[in-house]
Amino acid sequence: MKVDINANIMDINNAYATKNRELLEEKGILVINIMGSPGAGKTTLLERLLTIWQQHFGVAVIEGDLATSKDAERIKACGAQVVQINTDGGCHLDAKMITQVLPGFDLDQIKLVIIENVGNLVCPAGFDLGEDIRMVVLSTAEGSDKPAKYPSAILAADWVVINKLDLLDFTDFDLDNAVADIRQIKPAIRIFNTVARDKTQGIDQLAAAVSELVEAKASK
Amino acid sequence: MKVDINANIMDINNAYATKNRELLEEKGILVINIMGSPGAGKTTLLERLLTIWQQHFGVAVIEGDLATSKDAERIKACGAQVVQINTDGGCHLDAKMITQVLPGFDLDQIKLVIIENVGNLVCPAGFDLGEDIRMVVLSTAEGSDKPAKYPSAILAADWVVINKLDLLDFTDFDLDNAVADIRQIKPAIRIFNTVARDKTQGIDQLAAAVSELVEAKASK
Repeated sequence: MKVDINANIMDINNAYATKNRELLEEKGILVINIMGSPGAGKTTLLERLLTIWQQHFGVAVIEGDLATSKDAERIKACGAQVVQINTDGGCHLDAKMITQVLPGFDLDQIKLVIIENVGNLVCPAGFDLGEDIRMVVLSTAEGSDKPAKYPSAILAADWVVINKLDLLDFTDFDLDNAVADIRQIKPAIRIFNTVARDKTQGIDQLAAAVSELVEAKASK
Repeated sequence: MKVDINANIMDINNAYATKNRELLEEKGILVINIMGSPGAGKTTLLERLLTIWQQHFGVAVIEGDLATSKDAERIKACGAQVVQINTDGGCHLDAKMITQVLPGFDLDQIKLVIIENVGNLVCPAGFDLGEDIRMVVLSTAEGSDKPAKYPSAILAADWVVINKLDLLDFTDFDLDNAVADIRQIKPAIRIFNTVARDKTQGIDQLAAAVSELVEAKASK
């Protein structure tokens, strides 16, 4: 007997992803899965977005990390409901982990769930968590060759955020080149340019794009 | 019958790692496995180091990436022997991949093999490739919370290189804090601070530390 381990793992994951999707569909809650390398600026971006979103609707955040609750503490300070998942060495979140933590949120008080995946530009792209939108965050400090070198993350994404535009002058990052490579891998992808750290370039636009989808899903 | 898949994968990997280690031990060749997030500066660091090493001894480089041969082309331009491994979505190199490419090098002409692993601060740390030294490259742009959040990479490392020190003034990176976290995870670890991009801070020291080990192994 030959057992295809990977196919089996994926079947189980997809069953939980479907379960998550059905629950959140029923509640009219939008779900975004944020992926990116360690230090791309995912948590800082989320802090900036939460200050805008929280004025209009409730948000729940699931933080994925190998270790520590550093990110959950930062998000809690923004006033959002938050759960930290520690994977204890695991390289991505899976749909079952999301299924397990969703009952901990007051789903009637929120319209948006943000999942901040483990910092890893490879593995998280392979696992459907039940999200509506997959957002990959890249940083200018990582270099503009990264979309071409990590095509699976771009292929899996609906939106790409190019963050740390404030470091453009101090790096060799070629924005036109990066955008061209992203579009070559996935032509229909939506691209946002942001500075999450101390300015707000692109933050309002990104917040508004999400809010639009949140309202659309809530009113279905 | 219960089959422990992970243990089996690791047993196979370790058998190839031992084979690699024995071959390179016999030839008196030092092997360094470089790990780090996408964009930490691994390839740029290697370009700078190769210009120094190549004056004294031959170097062979194995480049691991999901896709493209961009890095191999950069290394080839430095005059080193180089092979590009494309993992086609795979999140790390394994020891068998190294076993397969080693015969492609002229091992009698070199004293050092550098393996630049797939950009990923999680998965590569779990796979012994037969190396003598594991070097993790971090970038200041990633943030100083990364050692605490990715302890498995630090635990697996012999050396840590904190790169992009030129961006220290433009980020919130706290060098003392990062070093303290690294030492708490692994007290005996050796830490280097570098600017690989356009200056050479720390490059001479790092090149010399490797050269010392190269000479020691070659003369055994």
